Amino acid sequence: MSIPDQKTSDLKIVTAAVIVIGDEILSGRTKDKNMVYLAEQLLEQGVQLREARVIPDIESEIISAVNSLRKKFDYVFTTGGIGPTHDDITADSIAAAFSVGIDYHPEAMGILTRHYEISGIEFNQARQRMARIPEGALLIDNPVSKAPGFQIENVFVMAGVPVIMQAMFDGIISRIKGGARMLSRTIGAGIPEGKIAGELGDLQKEFPDVSMGSYPFFRQGEVGTNLVLRSINQLNLNQAFEKLENILERMKVENTETT
Amino acid sequence: MSIPDQKTSDLKIVTAAVIVIGDEILSGRTKDKNMVYLAEQLLEQGVQLREARVIPDIESEIISAVNSLRKKFDYVFTTGGIGPTHDDITADSIAAAFSVGIDYHPEAMGILTRHYEISGIEFNQARQRMARIPEGALLIDNPVSKAPGFQIENVFVMAGVPVIMQAMFDGIISRIKGGARMLSRTIGAGIPEGKIAGELGDLQKEFPDVSMGSYPFFRQGEVGTNLVLRSINQLNLNQAFEKLENILERMKVENTETT
Repeated sequence: MSIPDQKTSDLKIVTAAVIVIGDEILSGRTKDKNMVYLAEQLLEQGVQLREARVIPDIESEIISAVNSLRKKFDYVFTTGGIGPTHDDITADSIAAAFSVGIDYHPEAMGILTRHYEISGIEFNQARQRMARIPEGALLIDNPVSKAPGFQIENVFVMAGVPVIMQAMFDGIISRIKGGARMLSRTIGAGIPEGKIAGELGDLQKEFPDVSMGSYPFFRQGEVGTNLVLRSINQLNLNQAFEKLENILERMKVENTETT
Repeated sequence: MSIPDQKTSDLKIVTAAVIVIGDEILSGRTKDKNMVYLAEQLLEQGVQLREARVIPDIESEIISAVNSLRKKFDYVFTTGGIGPTHDDITADSIAAAFSVGIDYHPEAMGILTRHYEISGIEFNQARQRMARIPEGALLIDNPVSKAPGFQIENVFVMAGVPVIMQAMFDGIISRIKGGARMLSRTIGAGIPEGKIAGELGDLQKEFPDVSMGSYPFFRQGEVGTNLVLRSINQLNLNQAFEKLENILERMKVENTETT
């Protein structure tokens, strides 16, 4: 099957950043699962994750991270800090970042009122805090525990509990407009990366729109390298990959000859 | 054993940031293990991890992250991008961030020359790149694969392969001056966080130097909350924790009465 000639410059790149909000991640107490999940899911959607930050539950830090990243990337996804307790300050901080007000959102209040009525649990003041949403934001559905997330401009604010965050993300996929899919091909080589480095560098120069990563591994005395080629241009990716295969094949022969 | 009265303001806080450098982490291809490892190890040393960033192998991004974080925190630790291939641009980027030159470091050249001589492997141009160290930097020993990391001012530049990074970190512990140890006490409660939120907020106001985190969990239909109190002040931490235990004890009784 022939692939039509592509110009990389015609393909649209869509980028994103993730902000993981929470002291518990920085203290090492809780292992973050959201960053990797979002990286993989965004890739599926044709969105390239370009930066991820883990920051504490401090208003000024949230404001500064959100404002710096929302200008730089097409989308920003935050996780954590939208629960009912005093340390849940994400919604207020996002409102401050956008210089908008924050108030009890009628639809969010409705969802939560019904939810607690059915559960026979008191809809107390703390729980009502979860209905506070920045002005102009669009709700993000939470099918797990009902308290919604929200979207304001290009910033999506989601829960920190992975199962809730994942359910929220499913609900917003239709709001994300992806660009060109980042394609990748990987080859493992039983040689140290220092041996391939020179020719890989030359190949990189030959294919500037194919990013070439070299990842050494050390397993029980065995030294090897995983070489990952990534590009939004299928044709160039395949051409570069074939050339790399040829280089590695030749090195294998050389290796056999010298040992 | 009585604990002497402590003033939190007398205790020294030492802070750090971690910068994980590498496209492979952002693409979700490689799961980062270094951030959590460093979070835990720094805690042991009395250093509080305050921010972590994952950034791509792009010089301007590395420069900007390093320069913003090294001014803000006592220490910065970077991982990744110091190998022999063209995508290993961390050393050059750090030199640029500090506006210093970079050259083949005599001691690093010596270490690598010996290493490759013994291994019978060619010390080629790509491998020699690993001896390029910013001016004025101090080497960080690499007992695993020899190519050293380096320290420049308060920035520690380490390998991305976890086993090498961990060995490098062991070697620099003596260079890190920790402050007050962050102490923590955790209690799990079989109640939703919305129930404890109000009183937890009041307790937080009573103990401003004890940070109180509330982490809900959902396991097979069971809803619960882990409450984590953290402070560098042992006395206040213990007092706050006892009060929290009493609140939870009372709620348990209330729960029994109403069901």
